[in-house]
Amino acid sequence: MAHQLLSEREINFLLYEFLDTEALIKRPRYSDHSREIFDATLNTAHTIAEKFFANHNAKGDANEPSFDGKTVSVIEETKASWNAFAEAGFLAAHCDAEEGGLQLPEVILRTALAYMAAANIASASYPFLTIGAANLVRTFASDSLKEKFLAQMLDGRSAGTMALTEPDQGSALSDIRTSATPTEDGTYRIHGQKMYISGGDQNLTDNIVHLVLAKIKGAPAGVRGISLFLVPKYLVDESGRPAERNDVKLAGLLHKMGYRNTTSTVLNFGEEEGAIGYLIGEPHCGLKYMFQMMNEARISVGAGASVLGYQGYTYSLDYAKGRPQGRLPSNRDPESKQVPIVQHADVRRMLLIQKAYAEGGLCLSIFATSLYEDEQTAATKEQRHHAATLLDLLTPVVKSWPSKYCLKANELAIQVLGGSGYIREYPVEQMYRDNRLNAIHEGTEGIHALDLLGRKVPAKNLAGYQLLQAEIRNTVMQARDKPKLESMAKALEKALEKLDETSFALFNQLQEDVDRGLGNATLYLDLFGCIVVAWMWLKQAIIAEKALETVPDGDAQDYYQGKLHTAKYYFEWELPKTDTAIALLKSGNPIPFDMQENWF
Amino acid sequence: MAHQLLSEREINFLLYEFLDTEALIKRPRYSDHSREIFDATLNTAHTIAEKFFANHNAKGDANEPSFDGKTVSVIEETKASWNAFAEAGFLAAHCDAEEGGLQLPEVILRTALAYMAAANIASASYPFLTIGAANLVRTFASDSLKEKFLAQMLDGRSAGTMALTEPDQGSALSDIRTSATPTEDGTYRIHGQKMYISGGDQNLTDNIVHLVLAKIKGAPAGVRGISLFLVPKYLVDESGRPAERNDVKLAGLLHKMGYRNTTSTVLNFGEEEGAIGYLIGEPHCGLKYMFQMMNEARISVGAGASVLGYQGYTYSLDYAKGRPQGRLPSNRDPESKQVPIVQHADVRRMLLIQKAYAEGGLCLSIFATSLYEDEQTAATKEQRHHAATLLDLLTPVVKSWPSKYCLKANELAIQVLGGSGYIREYPVEQMYRDNRLNAIHEGTEGIHALDLLGRKVPAKNLAGYQLLQAEIRNTVMQARDKPKLESMAKALEKALEKLDETSFALFNQLQEDVDRGLGNATLYLDLFGCIVVAWMWLKQAIIAEKALETVPDGDAQDYYQGKLHTAKYYFEWELPKTDTAIALLKSGNPIPFDMQENWF
Repeated sequence: MAHQLLSEREINFLLYEFLDTEALIKRPRYSDHSREIFDATLNTAHTIAEKFFANHNAKGDANEPSFDGKTVSVIEETKASWNAFAEAGFLAAHCDAEEGGLQLPEVILRTALAYMAAANIASASYPFLTIGAANLVRTFASDSLKEKFLAQMLDGRSAGTMALTEPDQGSALSDIRTSATPTEDGTYRIHGQKMYISGGDQNLTDNIVHLVLAKIKGAPAGVRGISLFLVPKYLVDESGRPAERNDVKLAGLLHKMGYRNTTSTVLNFGEEEGAIGYLIGEPHCGLKYMFQMMNEARISVGAGASVLGYQGYTYSLDYAKGRPQGRLPSNRDPESKQVPIVQHADVRRMLLIQKAYAEGGLCLSIFATSLYEDEQTAATKEQRHHAATLLDLLTPVVKSWPSKYCLKANELAIQVLGGSGYIREYPVEQMYRDNRLNAIHEGTEGIHALDLLGRKVPAKNLAGYQLLQAEIRNTVMQARDKPKLESMAKALEKALEKLDETSFALFNQLQEDVDRGLGNATLYLDLFGCIVVAWMWLKQAIIAEKALETVPDGDAQDYYQGKLHTAKYYFEWELPKTDTAIALLKSGNPIPFDMQENWF
Repeated sequence: MAHQLLSEREINFLLYEFLDTEALIKRPRYSDHSREIFDATLNTAHTIAEKFFANHNAKGDANEPSFDGKTVSVIEETKASWNAFAEAGFLAAHCDAEEGGLQLPEVILRTALAYMAAANIASASYPFLTIGAANLVRTFASDSLKEKFLAQMLDGRSAGTMALTEPDQGSALSDIRTSATPTEDGTYRIHGQKMYISGGDQNLTDNIVHLVLAKIKGAPAGVRGISLFLVPKYLVDESGRPAERNDVKLAGLLHKMGYRNTTSTVLNFGEEEGAIGYLIGEPHCGLKYMFQMMNEARISVGAGASVLGYQGYTYSLDYAKGRPQGRLPSNRDPESKQVPIVQHADVRRMLLIQKAYAEGGLCLSIFATSLYEDEQTAATKEQRHHAATLLDLLTPVVKSWPSKYCLKANELAIQVLGGSGYIREYPVEQMYRDNRLNAIHEGTEGIHALDLLGRKVPAKNLAGYQLLQAEIRNTVMQARDKPKLESMAKALEKALEKLDETSFALFNQLQEDVDRGLGNATLYLDLFGCIVVAWMWLKQAIIAEKALETVPDGDAQDYYQGKLHTAKYYFEWELPKTDTAIALLKSGNPIPFDMQENWF
């Protein structure tokens, strides 16, 4: 069954109806651009995704990277995908023209990348990580480091990684033990082991730039003693050409349930004389720098989860339309014709849930990307600050909500296909396996929950939180006098009030006992996410309601009817579920917290 | 990390506290038995599971069955597991002594099998299916068929399968097209293709007995025209020894996400002159007969799902106790010692949910098995009828609830392990992949929902439904005057009332429009299951509350405290979620049903 990557209709909705991407052209940075250029870029991305990424999605899953003790190999199609991506200029698409970039807006770049993720999220990881690593080098590294390493990362000769996690420390970055010893020439010697480093080794590029968190000897304990180092796989000459091998060795590959064509590695730094590392920025400020890449990766994880959810949705929809089986319950005539399973109510229900989650996730992801864009290029300082504040608050939600709900969507895609969904002869089981990673990497759901409730919401006297409330209320105001939207608007307004009550109850609990007060944080993250996505759906419903007044009958009407109906589904089936969470959170329900280790 | 199969403490609780398995000894069929025999049987099962099943669980996953176009091969350890199972007499453990069986109660057999499922659910499928197939032959086949085929199935020379599904029909059995043509010698010639036949070919046994649904030419349309045939892989001589090959061919293997060491096959019957099949029972009554095996398999699926949930729970618990990482939020000293992650509130929450789901599922499964036992051997006809009625009602729940919630448990087991949970170096990701099958095979969740709301609840003037209500009310009465249980008892009573209101609202909706009325059936199944499992937890809490009055401090107290606390969790966190479902069901929420195909 041929299956489309994303949907042009949906992408156009997101870019040009949900967002006003054309308005970016008025910003000085994009004045040489046009919608035609944006669309041509996306067309190129779509073509490359179809031709160089989709072609080996299943093959890369079935033939995961191997390591013979000396070199690691990924299937050769991966190299072609990397090259096609780099040659089309996507590694530098968002960079300024004077840096050799295409100076494209972030939303266009990220939408382009969504096609690659839809086609093959594992192979897409290599360029995605490289873009993030290059951004970090661009922002924080010295000119001399940039001269040696950046051009290679932007044109595809070198890839990039983020090397944070260590075997004994997991999510607790304050305990990393990788050490950095200064040498007389100003470089450092890095010693330590890093684990779960995606793309940590491969045979795609001439070099790999590892961005490594390590502690300089004598540094303060905890996260305030972490520095950031650029540690290349190969040392380079003055022109950046790889020369001798650095003391970075692949200790082994890890074998994942999904995302298999992305190497997941254990790397030994400094088994011998010490890997040569170059300090980025100031000593002890490494975590702050790394957060730029982490936050970028978090939005990317949410987007990837959403794209996988969307692929499962559209695949199972196509399947359901084409697969005849059984009859409606009211039809007792066994000799009558079978109906396509999309006509069975429960299949429609499963498709509708997928649509609500996947399109909700896509909206949320692109909305976050637009905030990132505004943070960089909005006209006024206030607008830029506003966007930055909102994005900072929403990042844990943007990472976590799609990772949870679009996995559920993939679970339902399997269920729509039944037995066929469970076998590798169909693609949905791989989507499910791939997507299971997203609630883990770049911070687990639990870590983001602590971040949201413990840091992001209370930050700066609730600045982000109050901004979000105000933004959502704006949307509510636009909807409340439209008969088709009124009940949704009221429900969202009510949900906002309840969120407020819940948040303030939690602040009190945190004051009394921070451990206990954070005990149900994951439930709060889920509640928060459900309300934010309800907002995304109300925004979509407003557009749909308005469009329905003018667009002609047929496909155009159907599209917006679908949006409106799915919004209704979300408000009537999903949002009410938050009531249970609200009651538990407000009362500070102690049951999980009070569970004793010996009682398990 | 060495990891225990199930937990003896939990098994003893289920058999001797939750159930009164010792009381079975008073029944004439079990008068030669004793608790010592039961326990010795389970010890044997445990040993075999450890030695012959657990040893190749990961290996069978990594080296799935292969087919060279002529023969199919499974890894050789599978054969040893089959032999050990058969040689210990488990294939016939529940059969009467005069049949060569051990005449053991069903609950003991099924608990023994739970050890195999815990060790290696894929390899355990071969004997499990064979037990079901042999039971069907025992119950419905003629003496001459039994003479030829049954002994081999009971001693392990022959395996058994159930061959229902066909490529073009899926869940809609009324549309099967496999045909059976009578011949002069009284046998039939079978022509057709069957798909997703577990164990449909293998190199473990001398022969395979396929139990095949087919239609005799001229039979009525629909399910009333289905007959059941015994179709062996090899025809046998008078003594049952395999002789020439029957016209049954493996068309190919299917490649599953999990359960990989169980072959999933496409079988061609009658590519040449027609496979020889033997009619079981009367013509056109095949589906009725097959329901015995299907119902048995459904309970087995629920039990398997629960066991996988339990394995994930205990594995992730052990991991959480042994894995130091980070500190409590209140501890700001980065130089203090890391704590084991079980001390993090969110990890405890994830473990507690797993415990609630997995032990709830185990309870529900063994309760269903005890009903099956009572249906066969309870003292009075009324008791037997009572048990049969209740089991008939509950089968869709027993199959579906664990399949859904114990998959969630496995999802959380992965999350507790974080990155380690996602890689095949740890066992929890396999549990998750294995468990994903359980909501699909033996009837999808949606099919069971239609069965529950459309047939089982309204059956016989609500006989089963009212019996269940009465049974649950009995439990409520036992709990409502105990201070520690009172609020749970009241909550369950209230839930029962709401279930009643919901059920009757749905009956009205069904009267008006059966298609629409069944539209939200899956939500009803979920609601129903949540209440039934709340009942299971109240039953456990009653036992725990009583035991806590007398047992000594230490492990014994801890065990029951854990039970009581988990019951509280279930009542305060899970049961309230049903309110959303109740509101949607009572009002007959039309959103999913009204979603139009063109709107997707």
